[in-house]
Amino acid sequence: MKESLKILKIGGNVINEPAALAKFLFHFAQIPSKKILVHGGGKRASEMAKELGIEAKMVNGRRITDQVTLEIVTMVYAGLLNKNIVSALQKNNCNAIGLSGADGNTIRAHKRIVRDIDYGFAGDVDQIGVETISALLNSHLTPVFCAITHDAQGQLLNTNADTIASELAVGLSEEYKVELVYCFEKKGVLKDINDEDSVVEKINLSDFDVLKKEGIVADGMLPKLENCFAALEKGVDKVIIGSPNIFYETTQKCTTLAL
Amino acid sequence: MKESLKILKIGGNVINEPAALAKFLFHFAQIPSKKILVHGGGKRASEMAKELGIEAKMVNGRRITDQVTLEIVTMVYAGLLNKNIVSALQKNNCNAIGLSGADGNTIRAHKRIVRDIDYGFAGDVDQIGVETISALLNSHLTPVFCAITHDAQGQLLNTNADTIASELAVGLSEEYKVELVYCFEKKGVLKDINDEDSVVEKINLSDFDVLKKEGIVADGMLPKLENCFAALEKGVDKVIIGSPNIFYETTQKCTTLAL
Repeated sequence: MKESLKILKIGGNVINEPAALAKFLFHFAQIPSKKILVHGGGKRASEMAKELGIEAKMVNGRRITDQVTLEIVTMVYAGLLNKNIVSALQKNNCNAIGLSGADGNTIRAHKRIVRDIDYGFAGDVDQIGVETISALLNSHLTPVFCAITHDAQGQLLNTNADTIASELAVGLSEEYKVELVYCFEKKGVLKDINDEDSVVEKINLSDFDVLKKEGIVADGMLPKLENCFAALEKGVDKVIIGSPNIFYETTQKCTTLAL
Repeated sequence: MKESLKILKIGGNVINEPAALAKFLFHFAQIPSKKILVHGGGKRASEMAKELGIEAKMVNGRRITDQVTLEIVTMVYAGLLNKNIVSALQKNNCNAIGLSGADGNTIRAHKRIVRDIDYGFAGDVDQIGVETISALLNSHLTPVFCAITHDAQGQLLNTNADTIASELAVGLSEEYKVELVYCFEKKGVLKDINDEDSVVEKINLSDFDVLKKEGIVADGMLPKLENCFAALEKGVDKVIIGSPNIFYETTQKCTTLAL
């Protein structure tokens, strides 16, 4: 039987709030199984760009990673945020090790191919370094990934943190029984977007079809859930979507996705 | 017999010159034994501080690491420089993994005790995580350390890169036969400071006494060499001081220190 591995992804709603982050990391450190943390950090990177007098380049509402933006996200994600998270986990007796995809060649990507839009140094993931990540986990280390990858040709790349989490989950499901947890600003998938307590607690593939037809899953949630089901179909055991406090508030509802 | 381990430290003269850095990393990647790279990066951090409109705080010619300076060095050392070095080594088929001392609790330090001067978030090293670093080396990874440590209580600290290199060398000499190599702007210890070719090729402890008495080793070089001999007395096998090209120019002289 495969060993359990939890992969948690946190975003801006946790990272940008020092008290929320400290609380989350305290509880993350207590998770007894093998675990990996993936973090974003776009807001802090945007603030840094502003402080440096650099304007964000957007096309159709999407950020373009030019050379100077790449330098900023590398500094902010892999340096400032990643090392502060690692040091906070160390304080909580969790032997964290901060990584970009370049470190140990853990996430190899390629520069996104230009079709209509040139996204610049945006990376699409090709391969997960399962052997190295397993070696770290077996050395009782807890990898903490920022949203930077590389192409193994000397180029760092900016990669969406949600994508990194799901690619890690799929890659590592070769070796582990993987539970992928997306912590975000809602309690889960909501039946009624205006009612925070209307969490749909379980969704399987046929439920998903119904929810799509009924229009309950739409807009930004649709591609998110489609990616989750794609990960499940590629071997991930379970995907959970919920607020960061599902680890320490036992009555907290969340959405569990399974095939 | 202990296995060989080379620990190389590079500073501004390599890091700030893209062509010199690329050449150095190409050759570093070829070193067949287990190896560790330690890098500084003060000049790039100073440039970043300037771009952000932050003045360096100096007391008696020494930099004070206040909160904002700590954030900048964490971004620049652990993010920008470290990840670019790691990705360049990956390109050269060296499976590098970038680390601060917080990562894997590899370098634990304490905030420098205030006597006459409060250096702020400057860290003095207490302990090297020999077991974790050995586990990484045994997983065929090449650690690349930036000059950031932590106190295991959630505080990151700024630590001199020369000190990190020598503390790693001393700590790891428990397990390995360690050769510590300082790459700097001169070819080695010079008999005549105006003659770049007057390299003193070998210095033992009694030679060192003579060189001190003759005034050949003085000023900034004196504490540097005293630190080297202290490392040798604590178990490091050999210390080499020379220019970064000693690895690829076979006729290049350098200074070798041994007890």
